[in-house]
Amino acid sequence: MEISENSFISLIRKFGRKNKRIVRGIGDDGAVVNLDRGQYVFVQDAMVEHVHFEFSFMDPYFVGRKALYSNISDILAMGAQPAFYLVTTGISPDMSSKDMYRLYQGMDRAAREFGVTLLGGDTVATKTDFFIDISVVGKLVGKRYYGRDKAKAGDHIAVTGKLGQAAMGLKTLQTEDSRRGMKSCIERFLSPKPPYAVWKELVKNDITDVMMDVSDGLLMDLSRMMAESKKEARIDLERVPMPRSLRGCGLEHLALSGGEDYQLLFTFPEKKMPAISRLSEKKAGVTVIGRVFNGKGVRLFRNGKEVELPDTTGFDHFGGRS
Amino acid sequence: MEISENSFISLIRKFGRKNKRIVRGIGDDGAVVNLDRGQYVFVQDAMVEHVHFEFSFMDPYFVGRKALYSNISDILAMGAQPAFYLVTTGISPDMSSKDMYRLYQGMDRAAREFGVTLLGGDTVATKTDFFIDISVVGKLVGKRYYGRDKAKAGDHIAVTGKLGQAAMGLKTLQTEDSRRGMKSCIERFLSPKPPYAVWKELVKNDITDVMMDVSDGLLMDLSRMMAESKKEARIDLERVPMPRSLRGCGLEHLALSGGEDYQLLFTFPEKKMPAISRLSEKKAGVTVIGRVFNGKGVRLFRNGKEVELPDTTGFDHFGGRS
Repeated sequence: MEISENSFISLIRKFGRKNKRIVRGIGDDGAVVNLDRGQYVFVQDAMVEHVHFEFSFMDPYFVGRKALYSNISDILAMGAQPAFYLVTTGISPDMSSKDMYRLYQGMDRAAREFGVTLLGGDTVATKTDFFIDISVVGKLVGKRYYGRDKAKAGDHIAVTGKLGQAAMGLKTLQTEDSRRGMKSCIERFLSPKPPYAVWKELVKNDITDVMMDVSDGLLMDLSRMMAESKKEARIDLERVPMPRSLRGCGLEHLALSGGEDYQLLFTFPEKKMPAISRLSEKKAGVTVIGRVFNGKGVRLFRNGKEVELPDTTGFDHFGGRS
Repeated sequence: MEISENSFISLIRKFGRKNKRIVRGIGDDGAVVNLDRGQYVFVQDAMVEHVHFEFSFMDPYFVGRKALYSNISDILAMGAQPAFYLVTTGISPDMSSKDMYRLYQGMDRAAREFGVTLLGGDTVATKTDFFIDISVVGKLVGKRYYGRDKAKAGDHIAVTGKLGQAAMGLKTLQTEDSRRGMKSCIERFLSPKPPYAVWKELVKNDITDVMMDVSDGLLMDLSRMMAESKKEARIDLERVPMPRSLRGCGLEHLALSGGEDYQLLFTFPEKKMPAISRLSEKKAGVTVIGRVFNGKGVRLFRNGKEVELPDTTGFDHFGGRS
């Protein structure tokens, strides 16, 4: 990059918005924040060039925005309101200060949407590829965190939004395939805004305390939830919400194992079904897809008949299929 | 790496030690922690392969340990007790799970020394180089943070330890120079443990509320402090503490601008001089090196006569000299 660290810090300092809780913001060894007593959630999540995205199809603005979204998604999934974030950027030799400015603009956009304030972080050089790593602090909204470890036999399993959109979007961007009709999938890959409105409804109606975000694919993430809860999930394939372009085109696996959906996966008890039905009627974007049983792992059914799990059960952030 | 993300998470889970404040630790979308009301400090700091170190001369154990030290250094410099940390590792293709285990062992060592508990983080693959990014949360020990922005005219300027050791250590490791007599410098580069004992004394004696850590070299960091405080610093070169191997060998610049010292730089009022003298007599490792004036920037003196600032005023984390 063509500017020095000092100049760059001045440049990003403007993104540190006013917040009455911040005693000392960007510009010191650390940020000082006044916190009330309570339960706080801490998350940290990174994106790496050539692993999670390419600049050839993803503007730095979207990289910054998505990196913050993915962290906010984790905070919401724990049942907390996101509040503050720190960001480390690993700047590759060929990035310009304009690129970095776009990156911070993208983060700032996501930050304003969710009322999150930048506290600081670090800027380092890399010799090769770019990376961004963000940590976010949130505060629990209710008394109990939303965990992967509390699913009970008899609970229903539901997800927000549609699955497989981001994976289909990425596939389209990576290949020479026609992009016709793929706009919403590409948008979902580039800018996976967490389902804030639905989340607020779920919180308001006290639907659940069992939740996680779908980041590595439904099957992988659900199997993690079942492992933590020591239960078995049975999923009805035909109910899994996905774009029409995936259903029946041999691309259902993208909805099951595609990754980067950043939708919310949760279970809820029978007595909350009326509230969920009301949400579904309002087209809030909640779909019931299965149920929890005593047992172990995840089982798939199509029209009541059990089918085999696909080989590829999830996106592995180590770069390969697990 | 040869193991999957799931297996790796199980592997590092053992480093998540018990802590009665942690409601939910490693294994969910985020960690949940019970906090008291108060002022908290947040920092985030990264190290990148080929920029900050080479595995050829730095075992992963030391990389992990140093990455956490550098963050703890920032927390102490703000006047806070470090409490929790999250870590993101960007794992390069040629790293083994044993390397990663060593890395976490190094972090765990530093964590135990300072009573810091691992909350979680992220593990991602990279296509080329390794990186590690850590965020730490601490709680203010007193009522006021230690800031760069509060230096007053008339204050004395002091540092802990010796400066230039780490830079000399790095220079030795990077070149074919003889390593004879350089053991303490190499050790300081590999394992720059923050001066915890001295820090506790400074806190106990309520010496100051103006502090920062020296990470980019004395001159660069002091000039940042003066810019924030809108004051001028005058430093007596002959008082700057450095190893004998630098003094008079044309290597004084390593003590002034070498970087990665992770010592504490602070100012204090005249009335605290007796307490500082007592600390110096106890060989606690505090040296007064200059004084604050009204004005701007940093000026250097040798035996009372002003000398020019060296061209290279500091280590720039963007990889070049600023």
